Amino acid sequence: MTGIDEFLINSARSVDQALDRLLPSEDLPPVRLHSAMRWSTFAGGKRFRPALVYASGRAFGVASERLDRIAAAVEMMHTFSLIHDDLPAMDDDDLRRGQPTCHRKFDEATAILAGDGLQSLAFKVILDDESLSDRVKLRLARGLADASGSPSGMVAGQQLDLDSEGTGATLDEIETIHSLKTGALIRYSSASAAVVAETDTAAISKFGDRLGLLFQITDDLLDVTRTSDELGKTAGKDEAANKATYPSILGIDGTRRLAADVCREALDALDSIDGDTEMFRGLCTKLVNRRS
Amino acid sequence: MTGIDEFLINSARSVDQALDRLLPSEDLPPVRLHSAMRWSTFAGGKRFRPALVYASGRAFGVASERLDRIAAAVEMMHTFSLIHDDLPAMDDDDLRRGQPTCHRKFDEATAILAGDGLQSLAFKVILDDESLSDRVKLRLARGLADASGSPSGMVAGQQLDLDSEGTGATLDEIETIHSLKTGALIRYSSASAAVVAETDTAAISKFGDRLGLLFQITDDLLDVTRTSDELGKTAGKDEAANKATYPSILGIDGTRRLAADVCREALDALDSIDGDTEMFRGLCTKLVNRRS
Repeated sequence: MTGIDEFLINSARSVDQALDRLLPSEDLPPVRLHSAMRWSTFAGGKRFRPALVYASGRAFGVASERLDRIAAAVEMMHTFSLIHDDLPAMDDDDLRRGQPTCHRKFDEATAILAGDGLQSLAFKVILDDESLSDRVKLRLARGLADASGSPSGMVAGQQLDLDSEGTGATLDEIETIHSLKTGALIRYSSASAAVVAETDTAAISKFGDRLGLLFQITDDLLDVTRTSDELGKTAGKDEAANKATYPSILGIDGTRRLAADVCREALDALDSIDGDTEMFRGLCTKLVNRRS
Repeated sequence: MTGIDEFLINSARSVDQALDRLLPSEDLPPVRLHSAMRWSTFAGGKRFRPALVYASGRAFGVASERLDRIAAAVEMMHTFSLIHDDLPAMDDDDLRRGQPTCHRKFDEATAILAGDGLQSLAFKVILDDESLSDRVKLRLARGLADASGSPSGMVAGQQLDLDSEGTGATLDEIETIHSLKTGALIRYSSASAAVVAETDTAAISKFGDRLGLLFQITDDLLDVTRTSDELGKTAGKDEAANKATYPSILGIDGTRRLAADVCREALDALDSIDGDTEMFRGLCTKLVNRRS
């Protein structure tokens, strides 16, 4: 097993333990709500954002244990967005990561509330982190609000994405959507340990920006090149929804070339960081070669 | 005009100005999302929770200007919960405060995202408050997470409320539901200036607890005694949904007696507070006599 694969396994294990500790128990009322929050959180996610938090720790010299809550918070925020995006009024998805989506497994009302509860808990988990100074906690919580809300985060991106359906968006418009919808939280995760170490975040933010774009480009590619079984979610959805994607504008080969370029830009951004950026580099390569 | 009426008008004006300043402009993309966030926020709310924040300022000697952001944050959090509670999958309400609900005025997806965005913004507004120390900001933001999430806040209460429909809940169960669904944010608002003043919150929390209960009891009363036109929302909903309420268990007269008792307990709790509690007292009386 290569270094990056072992790192990914360890990151997933650490954040899963933290999530299990931090999420309300299924025995605690409202049982149905807490079951739904746990169901979606533990329904087979790849823990990509937590891996970025821990990779950030390697790059900025912050011990993994001090990042467990941040890793858990970004995964909660991500899971909240997935639950709401999957709702009938939004993308209307029955499957996510090969499992029934939250509103299919439970019901729509519970799914809406599970998402709401996960957002609130993500903030709490950071605000209650005793290993961080007040100043750092505030910076992290504020950054999380920016990365999740509107006009600068996930919620804004999802709205723009819905607004763009069937409108024939340009490549620039697609990039704006993704930069908000998935990019903001990826940038935040990548820079998180730099915030903890109270060091400059310019280079790592540039890296996070490119990585977020790379993530979306490769996600679009998978949507047209893989089947639903291979993906664990409905494939071909973008085309069915008449959504503009990189492949629909650049073709598959053009999109692959763009992915290689963006990957190079991401790696270049790491050059000015003194610490150990090996895991960040490994994650870039993983994305370019991703199969799910 | 009595002191309390003037106070309520001034409180509403202050928080409305703060909300207008703090909410993303309707010109800023995503325009539809920001329009929806503003629509629901300015659709005729009574600003009861902001009034509690400012009344708390009177009681604990904190100037009104230092409380504008907190008042705005609790109103955003409250509006988020209303938007989601009104959704077809939850209470399925077409009218709120005499206006179309968010998903009727816009669409369901936008309403879900507008609620999500308001929750995130509520945290941000507190975390960015430059008039407060880091320590106070953290306490306020943490308290807001507790009051809005699960197991101790609004989201938990709404889930328990949905779970209880048609089950014939006992009075104790109803009280638990309301203590979470509406009580938590009312307690938080009442105690907010005590947190800013870094003083003891025991007495004011007791007051907030009773006030929250009083709010719900009088809300239940209105649901059975007033028409939809008078309320600006659908009346008789509790009975139609076969929801247990105070009047359904205690009758109308019994519920009125309970309201008087709970009001007295709330006023008693204020006796041990040194500051100017006149507005808190006025708010209790207003609730007992409320007509909408």
